[in-house]
Amino acid sequence: MHQNSQKKILRTICPDAKGLIAKITNICYKHQLNIIQNNEFVDHHTNCFFMRTELEGIFNDNTLLADLDDALPTGSKRELSISNQRHIVIMVTKEAHCLGDLLMKSVYGGLDVEIAAVIGNHETLRSLVEQFHIPFHCISHENLTREQHDHLLKQQIDHYNPDYVVLAKYMRVLTPDFVQHYPNKIINIHHSFLPAFIGAKPYHQAYQRGVKIIGATAHFVNNDLDEGPIITQNVINVDHSYTAEDMMRAGRDVEKNVLSHALYWVLAQRVFVHGNRTIIL
Amino acid sequence: MHQNSQKKILRTICPDAKGLIAKITNICYKHQLNIIQNNEFVDHHTNCFFMRTELEGIFNDNTLLADLDDALPTGSKRELSISNQRHIVIMVTKEAHCLGDLLMKSVYGGLDVEIAAVIGNHETLRSLVEQFHIPFHCISHENLTREQHDHLLKQQIDHYNPDYVVLAKYMRVLTPDFVQHYPNKIINIHHSFLPAFIGAKPYHQAYQRGVKIIGATAHFVNNDLDEGPIITQNVINVDHSYTAEDMMRAGRDVEKNVLSHALYWVLAQRVFVHGNRTIIL
Amino acid sequence: MHQNSQKKILRTICPDAKGLIAKITNICYKHQLNIIQNNEFVDHHTNCFFMRTELEGIFNDNTLLADLDDALPTGSKRELSISNQRHIVIMVTKEAHCLGDLLMKSVYGGLDVEIAAVIGNHETLRSLVEQFHIPFHCISHENLTREQHDHLLKQQIDHYNPDYVVLAKYMRVLTPDFVQHYPNKIINIHHSFLPAFIGAKPYHQAYQRGVKIIGATAHFVNNDLDEGPIITQNVINVDHSYTAEDMMRAGRDVEKNVLSHALYWVLAQRVFVHGNRTIIL
Amino acid sequence: MHQNSQKKILRTICPDAKGLIAKITNICYKHQLNIIQNNEFVDHHTNCFFMRTELEGIFNDNTLLADLDDALPTGSKRELSISNQRHIVIMVTKEAHCLGDLLMKSVYGGLDVEIAAVIGNHETLRSLVEQFHIPFHCISHENLTREQHDHLLKQQIDHYNPDYVVLAKYMRVLTPDFVQHYPNKIINIHHSFLPAFIGAKPYHQAYQRGVKIIGATAHFVNNDLDEGPIITQNVINVDHSYTAEDMMRAGRDVEKNVLSHALYWVLAQRVFVHGNRTIIL
Repeated sequence: MHQNSQKKILRTICPDAKGLIAKITNICYKHQLNIIQNNEFVDHHTNCFFMRTELEGIFNDNTLLADLDDALPTGSKRELSISNQRHIVIMVTKEAHCLGDLLMKSVYGGLDVEIAAVIGNHETLRSLVEQFHIPFHCISHENLTREQHDHLLKQQIDHYNPDYVVLAKYMRVLTPDFVQHYPNKIINIHHSFLPAFIGAKPYHQAYQRGVKIIGATAHFVNNDLDEGPIITQNVINVDHSYTAEDMMRAGRDVEKNVLSHALYWVLAQRVFVHGNRTIIL
Repeated sequence: MHQNSQKKILRTICPDAKGLIAKITNICYKHQLNIIQNNEFVDHHTNCFFMRTELEGIFNDNTLLADLDDALPTGSKRELSISNQRHIVIMVTKEAHCLGDLLMKSVYGGLDVEIAAVIGNHETLRSLVEQFHIPFHCISHENLTREQHDHLLKQQIDHYNPDYVVLAKYMRVLTPDFVQHYPNKIINIHHSFLPAFIGAKPYHQAYQRGVKIIGATAHFVNNDLDEGPIITQNVINVDHSYTAEDMMRAGRDVEKNVLSHALYWVLAQRVFVHGNRTIIL
Repeated sequence: MHQNSQKKILRTICPDAKGLIAKITNICYKHQLNIIQNNEFVDHHTNCFFMRTELEGIFNDNTLLADLDDALPTGSKRELSISNQRHIVIMVTKEAHCLGDLLMKSVYGGLDVEIAAVIGNHETLRSLVEQFHIPFHCISHENLTREQHDHLLKQQIDHYNPDYVVLAKYMRVLTPDFVQHYPNKIINIHHSFLPAFIGAKPYHQAYQRGVKIIGATAHFVNNDLDEGPIITQNVINVDHSYTAEDMMRAGRDVEKNVLSHALYWVLAQRVFVHGNRTIIL
Repeated sequence: MHQNSQKKILRTICPDAKGLIAKITNICYKHQLNIIQNNEFVDHHTNCFFMRTELEGIFNDNTLLADLDDALPTGSKRELSISNQRHIVIMVTKEAHCLGDLLMKSVYGGLDVEIAAVIGNHETLRSLVEQFHIPFHCISHENLTREQHDHLLKQQIDHYNPDYVVLAKYMRVLTPDFVQHYPNKIINIHHSFLPAFIGAKPYHQAYQRGVKIIGATAHFVNNDLDEGPIITQNVINVDHSYTAEDMMRAGRDVEKNVLSHALYWVLAQRVFVHGNRTIIL
């Protein structure tokens, strides 16, 4: 690898058409960029083309993007970014397991992420965060309207200008204004196998229904609570001997694995949002 | 094993109390019955005790049951049955995969079951059933009210006096009258991971929602469609490249495995219904 | 789709080089072929490039392949084939479950396959095969050397000129001569999670070892028994209550699912053999 | 629950015989102990009976055990213990993920465990341990024979008198003397799906073999390395795109889940060792 070489990721979304791969890869070739890895997908229902290209070489971003704009059909989107946008802010309430897993992985490996800060609406997790030498801000929701609280959160988050906001068991509903401020940038872990058991106390719902499998779902947050595009899900078996509390305990390992797995893919810029679905290349 | 020895299964359900296991096992011991396998469960929420005891020896059913009735608290239920009640009638519509799996297992092993007959509301699967030398009855629903149709089905089923009625992708809603005629005796396979995607076209619903895992659920049928006690569930991973049709194809293997797995446990008399939940001992 | 349009699959394997995707997709574009789906993989350890391209249009095979040969580096392999090579011969011994699943799927859907014939070294499964109106040939191994037996098998198989030979629980070791006659064309199901429990009676080995998970492995057959490139694997949980016989019974569903799943991918021409590994695009 | 009431667990292992459950539960009843939960298993291969009984009431340990000894056949073992023996020492080398998970769960819930100390043969993990306010002892193996090193470890461990010694990715082989000092008290996590890939670098072995599923195994340690009784195992899917390093990263989540899951069962006194197998009641 040449000393001025860089790695960047090109993401292209456009209406499907004959010759798209040829056009895009020709331009890369013309720019003497090597394709390390390339993945495409065509959604034949919506006639939409998705491509993720890992490139290596000496980049002239402006001419590369101009060449692409000339070649691609109207309505195309293309992004060229350095291969890691990995700056996150985490929001929590009182539960430690998802947060702890992200803290451990950020320091000891497993996730190429930089946790800029953790924001909680309780003080509960301050000591955990601070023992990893990361700033913790408690912004209590008490005596505030939801709008006022979210406004304070937003101010604090924007101070860090994160690539993503990760809800690691943040147990409050967010305002539309907050959500729209971070489009496709908020990742939530929901402690059920969505769309089963939307809403509060999913493990208690699961117990009542007598299910034999429980799960967790990582998804982008949009305005409909628990309704955003799903990134990944996982499940475990339970049986009649599990109380709702047993499910909660067992479910925590699933929750943290699913959230960190989703974040791994998002940080690798593999996740494309397409309506209410995700495409992972 | 003595030549007159038999194997029977004793199932006891009663309010929990101190000394229940001692009382029941004492009676078995007094009757010189050997306990091959014993499983109990106490539901501490409802204070209900469940026990399944595989016994071997020479049985005097009347005195054994009388002794149990003397010893057990008021409101107890106990059943003593030979170890295989394995006579079933299968109901189908047009899909062959669950039916084919049950036919294969009944002939070539894997399920100790006797398929007395198959009843379809279409002719589609007649040749499959008849090539296994099992009676097939087509009872079309055309030009009949739901009540009339279910009445005809019931007549045909009762002719065979089955232990269980297995809905192997029978795609019609059953009347309350039909369902109540076979309490905890009707086993259905639903092609989703309940309670997600209740109702029609669950794979299309799953596609629309963009889930990353799909599944199937075997359950007893009660009056609320897709709401009966769940026996077992299983899932598989899918991704963005799966169309609803791909999910249907991949889901078939899950459906047939889940249904035959559930039936295996039911036939082994391991499944206790407790409200809307099952206890599997 | 134009009336003379066809679907074909182009598979390319070659040393990795800059511009390969551009070159190949340019040629497709020049031939006015539409790319329905495209997948690539570069094995950076061996510097080897793999690409599977589903094409639609009016093909001039000769000029297309000539153009590719001009463009690709020395040592490249490319195959252009109609999208389904789906003619198989199945070999069996006495167990019915994998065979039955393939028969069901070939007739009732789930696998776009044509079973030309089934060959057994016992008569056991003749009736099952013939009730599906497919030829069954019993070629007993008795009183024959392994070479003589395999020679007879080969003769019978070659009579059908199959795309693949599927060992659906064929329980005999094959001679190197037989195996080399069908390079990367023989698919076997091994009833363990390879490389655990190579050889005979894997479920008994699993019982002895006290494992908590058992599995099955579909693989291409090469000269080292149970050592060929793995196509797919799956597992199920077991516990201390499972005897070796219980594992065998439960394992059958895994075996048949894994084999038909592997065959599905092979028939879709998604499986590339690369040394002792497979790449599935 | 009476104010002097306690919860204790009775574990019985003995040759199978008629009336065992009756005898044991009679004695519990006579002592006015309530059975909260009871599980039995008979290994019909070895004719061995296992029973785990959670009892609640006012215990007279001496007379209870004497009564049991009178009633049970020769060669029986019975243990009565308070319901949590949860004092552990953890041994580590350089990898943090299993250790971090146990630390998190001990402080924030999920595992009712008390980590008395962590012993490493490197300094790497000192800061992680100390930030949780738990003693860390580095006992380097450098310039020591294996016997000398294990002797020092043993001295340090015995200082804490733990119920269990947990090898959370301790990457050195232990001497027979060390192992025999803690019979059925050492729990190891092996980073493969045993018995596949015994020994060093299992992920590299898995990559070479081209497996499609990788896993981890928690087991008791006996003298044959990687050969002790398996407690639990779990797996994840991988594909051709995973390098050995990718497998290592993905495998870490499986490893830590499997280890903490195994420890959960062991601490609940649910795990019985029977030869080279475990029975989990």
